This record gives sequence, structure tokens and C-alpha cells, in this order.
Amino acid sequence: MNPAASTESPVLDHTGLAPLFAPRGIAIVGASRSPEKLGAAMARSLRGFADRGGHLALVNARDADMYDSVRAAAAAGPVELAMICVPAPACPQILAEAAAAGVRAAVICGGGFAEAGGDGVVLQRELAEIVGHTGIRLLGPNTSGFLVPPAGLTASFVPGVAQVPAGRIAVVAASGGVNHALAFLLTEAGHGLSLAVGLGNGVDVTAPDVLDYLANDPHTAAVALHVESVADGPKLVRAVRALTVRTPVVALVVGRHDIGAFAASHTGALATSWRTTRAALAQAGAVLVEDERELIDAVGALAIGRARPGPDPGVGVVTAQAGPGLLLLDDLRGRRADVPELSPATRSAVSALLPPLTFQRNPVDTGRPGPEFGRVLAAVAGDPGVSVLAGYALHEPDAVDLVAAARQARGTGIPLVLGVGGTGPQVTGVRRALLQAGVAVAIDPRGVAAATGALLADARARHRASVLDPVTSTDLLIDAGRYDENEAKGLLDRLGIATTRRRVCPDRASAHRALDELGGPVAVKVLDAAVLHKTEIGGVHLGVRRGPDLDTALDALESVGARRFLVEAMAPAGVDLVIGARRDPVFGPIVLLGLGGTTAEALADVCVRLAPLAVSEAATMSDELAGRALLDGWRGGPRVDRLELGRAIAALGGLLATQPGLAEIEVNPLRLTAAGLVALDAVVLTREANDGQPDR
Amino acid sequence: MNPAASTESPVLDHTGLAPLFAPRGIAIVGASRSPEKLGAAMARSLRGFADRGGHLALVNARDADMYDSVRAAAAAGPVELAMICVPAPACPQILAEAAAAGVRAAVICGGGFAEAGGDGVVLQRELAEIVGHTGIRLLGPNTSGFLVPPAGLTASFVPGVAQVPAGRIAVVAASGGVNHALAFLLTEAGHGLSLAVGLGNGVDVTAPDVLDYLANDPHTAAVALHVESVADGPKLVRAVRALTVRTPVVALVVGRHDIGAFAASHTGALATSWRTTRAALAQAGAVLVEDERELIDAVGALAIGRARPGPDPGVGVVTAQAGPGLLLLDDLRGRRADVPELSPATRSAVSALLPPLTFQRNPVDTGRPGPEFGRVLAAVAGDPGVSVLAGYALHEPDAVDLVAAARQARGTGIPLVLGVGGTGPQVTGVRRALLQAGVAVAIDPRGVAAATGALLADARARHRASVLDPVTSTDLLIDAGRYDENEAKGLLDRLGIATTRRRVCPDRASAHRALDELGGPVAVKVLDAAVLHKTEIGGVHLGVRRGPDLDTALDALESVGARRFLVEAMAPAGVDLVIGARRDPVFGPIVLLGLGGTTAEALADVCVRLAPLAVSEAATMSDELAGRALLDGWRGGPRVDRLELGRAIAALGGLLATQPGLAEIEVNPLRLTAAGLVALDAVVLTREANDGQPDR
Repeated sequence: MNPAASTESPVLDHTGLAPLFAPRGIAIVGASRSPEKLGAAMARSLRGFADRGGHLALVNARDADMYDSVRAAAAAGPVELAMICVPAPACPQILAEAAAAGVRAAVICGGGFAEAGGDGVVLQRELAEIVGHTGIRLLGPNTSGFLVPPAGLTASFVPGVAQVPAGRIAVVAASGGVNHALAFLLTEAGHGLSLAVGLGNGVDVTAPDVLDYLANDPHTAAVALHVESVADGPKLVRAVRALTVRTPVVALVVGRHDIGAFAASHTGALATSWRTTRAALAQAGAVLVEDERELIDAVGALAIGRARPGPDPGVGVVTAQAGPGLLLLDDLRGRRADVPELSPATRSAVSALLPPLTFQRNPVDTGRPGPEFGRVLAAVAGDPGVSVLAGYALHEPDAVDLVAAARQARGTGIPLVLGVGGTGPQVTGVRRALLQAGVAVAIDPRGVAAATGALLADARARHRASVLDPVTSTDLLIDAGRYDENEAKGLLDRLGIATTRRRVCPDRASAHRALDELGGPVAVKVLDAAVLHKTEIGGVHLGVRRGPDLDTALDALESVGARRFLVEAMAPAGVDLVIGARRDPVFGPIVLLGLGGTTAEALADVCVRLAPLAVSEAATMSDELAGRALLDGWRGGPRVDRLELGRAIAALGGLLATQPGLAEIEVNPLRLTAAGLVALDAVVLTREANDGQPDR
Repeated sequence: MNPAASTESPVLDHTGLAPLFAPRGIAIVGASRSPEKLGAAMARSLRGFADRGGHLALVNARDADMYDSVRAAAAAGPVELAMICVPAPACPQILAEAAAAGVRAAVICGGGFAEAGGDGVVLQRELAEIVGHTGIRLLGPNTSGFLVPPAGLTASFVPGVAQVPAGRIAVVAASGGVNHALAFLLTEAGHGLSLAVGLGNGVDVTAPDVLDYLANDPHTAAVALHVESVADGPKLVRAVRALTVRTPVVALVVGRHDIGAFAASHTGALATSWRTTRAALAQAGAVLVEDERELIDAVGALAIGRARPGPDPGVGVVTAQAGPGLLLLDDLRGRRADVPELSPATRSAVSALLPPLTFQRNPVDTGRPGPEFGRVLAAVAGDPGVSVLAGYALHEPDAVDLVAAARQARGTGIPLVLGVGGTGPQVTGVRRALLQAGVAVAIDPRGVAAATGALLADARARHRASVLDPVTSTDLLIDAGRYDENEAKGLLDRLGIATTRRRVCPDRASAHRALDELGGPVAVKVLDAAVLHKTEIGGVHLGVRRGPDLDTALDALESVGARRFLVEAMAPAGVDLVIGARRDPVFGPIVLLGLGGTTAEALADVCVRLAPLAVSEAATMSDELAGRALLDGWRGGPRVDRLELGRAIAALGGLLATQPGLAEIEVNPLRLTAAGLVALDAVVLTREANDGQPDR
């Protein structure tokens, strides 16, 4: 069978990647008879492609039994992909020759390019130029390749990849090593792969290209995405957003902690923050995970089926042993899963099946399970408040047939995740049979929780995507030049963000009149667009009630150079927040929400989203803050109106996204009071006023 | 072979648990011919015990082929352990009969006791009374039993337990289900077990008993401890402290999140907080983990060998693939592992082995490994700054023999953790061979990080234990009655904790004199031992500089009922902390450290230790705060002296631990200033003054 015939790979290729991932023929340039050489290892790996009838041509000008050039190989049969296995300095010439010979894709596995610095940077630039001139698609350099198990195509030098079975999960990894590590972990977990690719230095083919390709790949039911750095944020976001409509994506982003020096040596410095990359991927519809183990559990579950979209889908938990059930519940709570009390009808059904000794409200603890286990699973899965069913049981074949039991619950149509504890081939067999039966499987409670959490996150993301209506702000025009606090607040007024009553005072007399008009206590501030940090220079005096106090304040302000003053009514006490919008160098306009004060700042307790964004999306941001309890009536304090806060954040984001002249806008603090949100200070930086400084 | 002969189980049994875990004979009471019955399952499981020559007696009065009573079974051969497989209501009588027949230990697997409520509570009390009267040791009820693989003893009804191989890891789990889940996970990871027990309701045998037993078990090299609730905190702490001198303990504590209702239905309400339980276990020398997967990685590594004790042991990282190496480094950084730059000698040795393209400072990225891999591992392991070596490689047998390579590094004597990526039996074989060679093994970067983190935590804990010298305070005597702020601060003065200059003012005139003496600005407060929350009633006025302002403040204080005033010099600005000591209902005296302010409070950013404690131990507490950056010169602010802070905390803890009359002492805020720490307010609650309220 020829795996590469286009009738067998019905991928609609807008991306130009079909010659890479579904080539009709492959040339190995730098093929070798020395078994330890890269070219020899690659030839061994690609034997399966030839065995299936693919045209596999070995090219080595110094070996009489091989083709002496790509051109010669291409003359003998179709060559769409060149695997270039020669030292780095020879790669550009080979790539150019391949392109000239009509080859449409190439892979360079070797290192010695940009990641090595020096001459490697030049070599990599040469590769980029050839790609630019010829249109050949290039994977790598500095990658261990890719595999397409459904086509028997293992274009990787790593041994063992031929053991990776065909299936429905795709891996798109920044690194060749991680690509293989994930492919092997998925294999061990009983999954098969549709495609697995490591991008390496990503001179040409990057993650969004592969994601676009996968959007039309009928073999792929879920994608595991590993991200180290992002070259083009909007392109990645577009690709993930388009793909997740049909195919779930689970993303693992490296770089939570400082790994800079080593990372830079690998594939270049991380260009944006871990936090912003994660926020962008989540907003585009991807499910985020914390480590590679959760990635396996999550993508394994999502490849089997997604939960119905919803703002807060409920989980039904059924456990055959209370102890593992507690571990599972504890973990689910940490993921903020909703584990709702079951409906009276469900509780009645369950109580008819179980002895009264057990806990049945949700979680349902069956005690040692028997033949009723399947009916319990089905009853809980059928509860109207349950969108995902999560279960755990030790393998006790004498007591219960878990596969048959799970099949009973599958009838309800909601996703089922079942943890099966045990050891030995019989247990492995049960786990595989469950996968075959359309049940997501884990080996421990944490795996069940990770898989369940992923199903919930995906369902929430799809719900959010269905109501998206980003706020934009094209009717306002940002003036060039600097904004003082009064002008910045004027902008907030027009955006519908409340500010305090205020008077601009060009002299002391007008300040006294303002105090009379506003009534004490007032805030008295230096008003000067050139002063960005008023408090630090002593430019803010709060709680001024009477004339003499005002004079004291004005004396102090004049002593630090104030020519004009802003006199404002004091806001009531409350909880201070910070909101803002700025431009990320990789992802473009973003909005931020944080708690005010140094503690929150030291904790970096900040939530980020891409802008523009819908009010409903912005309204979810406060739930991600570690200190969110402060916004919900902490100690009798005010309770935030999430929509009001969302409107304010979305307004800032919409303004920044639609006003190219605006560099940054920040409201700090935005105070949460019993009467709602009010902006106490604001800074607007236009690009012109930003003095040519690079965007932050 | 009789597994139970005392010559073969050289356990010095101070605990009375030898008849349970190393019995010479076993009676199954409630044995059955119906294969689905508990008694039948137990007989199947214990067949191995009989096969090894142990006396196994089946007891069922209604079956003529079985013994009609425990007494009859005991007459026919030694019976030290009774497995009681009868319904709950019959259990007390059987237990009493067994004790009367001279049986010294029993297991009740069935449920229907305290966890079921109602009559079950009464039944459980009856069991406790029989244990109390007779001295028989009882495991359970409500547990699936235990296993001792080295003795071929599987006293559990769960099928498959006989497949758990003998080895050097013990599991002590609160729950029978978790016990089995962990035993199976360890088996799958290639480990063998010395003992695995689920405690169930813990009427008699609890975790400390088993830990004491294991302290003298030569088979056990490391212990996995699963904790749901703690009945006797000090007993648990003593057991862990004694055991960890020789044998590492890894602890997983359930209940981070709210799982109360289900937990209560399982084995009783959680009596203390998750946080305090974790702190107590860590202080006693246990290594804490976050989930059962890390538990497996951690205990697996520690069973092979411990790192040398040290305050901050360094990790050498060697990776054959950069991508997985980045995942590993990122994870290690999150565990605050020290990954030090390698010494010049090591770097020189490494650079002689590797091509110049790779990163070699630590992590060392070998690029695709070859025969030099072992020498690289050995060079890094031999670095003077490296106490643990963590590595990762894909399985590439054509390129490198990982087992031989790891053996080279083992020569340095430091623990080696190696992650091996790959799939199939050959890879499993390499992992097993590495374990045999004394190398800890993981399947992924996270597993390497978890194992490495455990080795580091254990090394740090042993270092701390070696310098322990708890602060006590027997020369101070706490007076009965209430303490006002001045008296509380007098106590702090005597403890060596700095306070501000202050004057007790019985009237307004003395307050004015105090202002003159201290100079402004001053704080003016109500002084009344009955007022615990001065600020909330308007009892605190700050920044009072002049006589008229003082009169305004005194007016206000008198209007809220103040009869006496405290006038104090204002402290300089700084970062506010909270320290305190109180009595935990389960663990007794504890100390707390947190950041001041509502944000920190809402985040529950608090660190706990048992008291009394050494200054060196207390000095480590601030490093556990999420907001610790605030204490290290945040934005040019003051930098905490950890020893000064440790002395203050240890002093409070020492006072509480040695003064039975003291209920609680709290300094809030303790301000970190450029000149050091100063207490701005303090509350002392004596037990008498606590008005009979229960301890918090």
C-alpha cells in the first residue's frame, strides 16, 4: 500500500504541509552505510515507508550504490520530502538543490544553527532565505523529526518510534526530545497517534502551521501542544481558535520559572511571559496543563470525547473505595470543579442500588462494588446536573466487570473518566478495553482529576467562545501627546468608568474654591503629565478637610515643583484593584487585572487576557486571582459586580486594540466600594509620548 | 518455610504488632465456601501464607469441615492473628472470643462502624472496649487489610495483591483503598514492598504504631505515609521523628480543599488543619508530596538512598535532550532546588567530553548522547557543589548504554535519579536494571524532579534535625488574668522582642506629658485588656503630632469608652508581619508567621511550625511565605534578618510550650523596618482569661 496517495490522505492542504507529512516519496540526503550515522538511522526508521510502497531514495554522492543528487533521486520517482542528514555547513546548499529539484519539503535534524550561536546563526539565516525564495517547507533544523503512524511514516532517528501505534492524538512539540517523550508516554498509556512532530528551531514550519494542517486532518481527535517560545502570537492564537472549534487542544507551556540561560541556548530566548502565553492559549480555546503527566491524561480524555459546553459543568463522582475517592475529590476541588449535590431522582435511584452505609450525595461511594456498579454509574451520569462522570475502582474482577459497567454509563452520552487501580497484564487489558469502549482511563485518582479537569476546561472554553462579542472602541480618538491625570480620567469618563468629582486648579485660589465646592475631605495632587509617579515625589495629599490643611498641602506640592493642582472628592474606603491595557511584544494588545497594594504586587497576583475581548470574558478574570476572596465581601466589605468590572476591563482593552496611537492605559487604583467601582488614578501613555521607548 | 518464625523476622517488637504483621498462625473467622464472600476471598489471599508453612485455620461454626471456634483453631496450632470476616454486629463478640483464646491480633475488614453512624458508632465503641480490656491489637475496622510480601503474607481480600513483590518500601495508609492503590502503583513502577497496611477506622492500631514497628524492621528502607486525619498529633510526630533518623518517610496529606462531608463519612472529621498536619510532619523529618504520583517517585528514590544532609544541597542536571531538560529545570526551580554553576574543574572535564555546541554550565546538555554519557554523568556527580544528580535521556540503545553509564556515576556515592523516555519491554527492562544498579528511575521529567525534590527535602530535614535546640522559656511565669497591651508588650520586652517607647497614661494630662517626652508623631490608643480589637472600635489614632491633635484623639477615645491611654512613639514605615503562638487541638503548641494586611490574610499566606522549636528552624519559616519577596528588600525596602525573626518566633513558641497558663500570644503587626523588627501591637490570652472558650 502506498501511504502517500492523495486519496488516502484526504487532508485539505491550505498549509503546504502535505508534502512534509504525507509525501509520495522521500530522499535521504547524506544516507550512509555506517549504522551509527544519522543518515543510516533515518534510513532504518523510514524502511516502513518503503515497505508500504513509498518511494524512498538514498542520496550520497560518495556512494556508487546511491543517487548522487536529489535531482537524480527525483528523476527516478516522486520525491516530495528531503531528509537532510549532512553537517550544518552543507545544509543550505543541499536545501537549495532540493528546492531546485522540485522537492517541496525538507527536514534538517542536525544542530549547529542558531542555538549554537556564532556561524550557526549565519547558516540558519541562509536556510531562511532559501525557504523565502523557493517556497520549500522546512522542518527544523535541530529536531529529531516527526512521525505519522497511520501512514507508517517515522521520519525520526530515535529508535522505538515504529512502536508508536496509529491513533487519534497529535503531538506538536517545540522540541524534538519532548515530541518523542510525549509520543512514548501516550503509547504507554494505551493511546495511538495521528502525527507527532518536534519543531526544533522553527525556521519555517512553526506550531500554527501544523495546527492549521491538523484542522483538516480527519485522523486527529485531539492535540497535545508543547510550547517553549512564540514567534508570532496572533498567528498562534488564530490557529488554536480555529482548530479548537472541532478539535480540542491541550497546551503545556514551559518557563514558569527562570530557565532563561539554558532556554536561550536551546531555541532562542523566551520572547514573552509564560503567563501571557498561557492566557492567550486559554482564551483561544486551549486547555492548559501544569506538567507532561497531566498533558497525557488530558489529551487522552479529550481524544475520546468532549463534554457539552457550559459555564460551569458539573462532575459526578463515583468511587468504589472511599480513600481514593477522597484524593480525587480533594484534587477536583483544587481545580474548582463543581461537584453538585445529585438530584432527588438520582439519589433515590442510587439509594435503591446501594446499602445505606455509604455516602451517596456526590461523591457516591459504592462500598466494595458488585454487579450494581454499572447501574450506579449510569444513574449518576444521567443526573441533569452532571456533565462529566469521574470514577475510581480497584480492579476486582470477581466483584465487578468494570468494562461492562462503564458501557452502561456510556449510554448517557456524557464523557466518563475511570481510574482503575491494580497491577499486571490483566489490569492493563481492562484499561485498554475501557479505552476501546470510549471511556477515558487513568491509573490513579490524580489522573482521573486531571482528565476530568481538562474536560471541564474545554467545555467552559467552548461556552465562552459561543458568546464572544469583543468590545471595541473606534468612536474615541486618542490624541497625540501626553495625558495628565485629568485628561486620563476624562477618557475613563467617556469609556463609562466612574471617576471621582474633581477640579483642575491652575492656582491656589482655585484650589480653595474647589475645596469649598467639593466639601472635605479631598485629595490634592500635582497635575502634570510629565509626572508619572506622583506619590513617590510627595505629589499626593489625602484627606484634606480645611483651608489651613489645604495650604499646608499646596506648600508641599509647590515645593516639589507643582504648577497646577487636581482637587478631588475622596472616595469611600474599599478594596483597591489595578486594571490596565498594554501591548505585549508577541501577542499584541493585552489587558491586566490585579489586586492593589505591595503584597499583591510581590505575589504577582495578576490575570491577563488578550484584547479586544468580550465583557463576559473579562468578567471571568477576577476568579483567577489568588486573592479573589477580597472581592467577595471579605470581612463584610464590598462585593464586586463581575460584569461591571468586566465592562471596565473590556473598555480599556477595546480602546487599546483599536487605537494604534495608544501605548498603554492603567487605572491604579480602581477602588471597589459599596457603591461600585471608581477610578482613583489613571495613566495614559500614547506612543508619541512614550518617547520612542519600546513597548513593554 | 514458616515465614513467621521469630528468627526470620528479627523485628524488635516494642509495639505489640509482631502478632499482626508476622503471625505464626492465622484464623479466618467467617470463612466461607461461597467464592464471592469476604471470608472466601481472604482464604484465597492467605493461601500463600499456608503454602509457606504458616498455620492457617478456617473457622465457621456452620461448616462441619471447619473449626467451630477460634478456641478450637488455636488448640490445633498457633493462632496469633484472627481475620474477622463476619457482619459488623457479630464482630465484637468474635473479637472478645479471639482475645479469650489467646489470639494477640485481629483484623476487621468490614464496614458498618463509626463511618456509617448510628448503631455503627456503638459497635465501634464496643470494639475499643474489648481492645482496652484484653490488650488484643486490632487493625480496622473498615479496611481491606494488609500485606507483607517478604513473608508471602497477603491479608487482604483485593485480588492481585499476591503479585506485589517483596522489596524495601512500606506503605502506611489511612485508607485500605489507598493502601492498595499505592501498592499497585509502586509495583508498576518496578518497586517491591516490605509491608503495606490500610488503617481504616483506626480503633486501635494507628499510623504511629506502625511507624514505630517499622523503625525496627530491617526490610524497610523507606515509608510512604498517607494521612487523612490525626488522632494524636504528638504521638505521630514522635514516631516520624524517631523513624526518619534511619528511614525516610514521604507523606501525602489529604484535605487541602474542603472535602468535609465526604471525609466525615469515611473515617471521621478532620480534626486539625491540612496545613498544620503538613507542617508537623515536615518538622518531624518527613518529606511532603502533593499527590500520589509524586509519592511514588519520592519514596522510590529515597528507598534507594538518601542524599547527604545539608542546608541547601545542590543538584547537577544532565540531559541528553534539551527540551525535556528544560521541563526538568523548570520543575526543579519550582521546587526551589539549587542548580549551581559547576566548578571550573567539572566544566573543564565536561567540555573535554562534549562538542562545544551544547550548554554545559548546569544543566549539562550532552546533545545526542554517545559512549561519553557515563563520563559526563560521573564528572557532574563528582562536582563539589552537587549532592544529587538528576538526568534525563530517551532510550537510544544504539547510542548509549544507560545502565553502564549510570554505574559510572554511581561510583561517586551521591544519589542519581534518571528519567528514561521510551516505550516497550526493552525500555522497561532498562528501567528495572537501573533500579537494580542503585539508580532511582522515572519515566518523565516531572518524575525526575519529584524524586530529586524529595531527596533534597530529606537532606534539608536531616540537616535541620542535626542542629535542633528548641527555645524554651521556663524562667518567665505567665500571670493569670487579662493582659492589656502594655503588659503584653512588657512580656515581649522580657522575651527580647523590640517594642516602641510607650507611656501608660491614666488621664489626659499624662497623655500630654507623654507626647512631650516622646516627641511627635505618636500613636494614641485605648488601653483596656477587655478590648481585643482596638482598631475596629476606633481605639487607635496614629500620627498625632501636636497638643490640639492629641486632644481630638483623646476626645474620640473617651467617646468609645477609654479610661486609660497608651501613648507610643511611632515606628518607621516598613513591612508588617504577624507572628503568634497558639494551641492546636491535635498537635498542641504551634507558632505562626504571616504577612500583615488583608491581602495576605485573604490569601491565607501563613507558615506554621510546632513549638517549642529552635531559632534555626523558625528562621526558615519566612522562606515558605508566598509573599516572601516583600521581606527581602522589595522596592528598596528593608531586608529581614532571618535569625532575628526566628528568635522572635521561637521565643513566642517557647513561652507557650512551657507555660500551661498561656492560651495564645500574637504580635500583630510585627513591623520589619530598616532598623530591625519592632512589635506595634500584641495580644496575650491566658487560659483563665479565655473565659473557658475552647482552644482555637
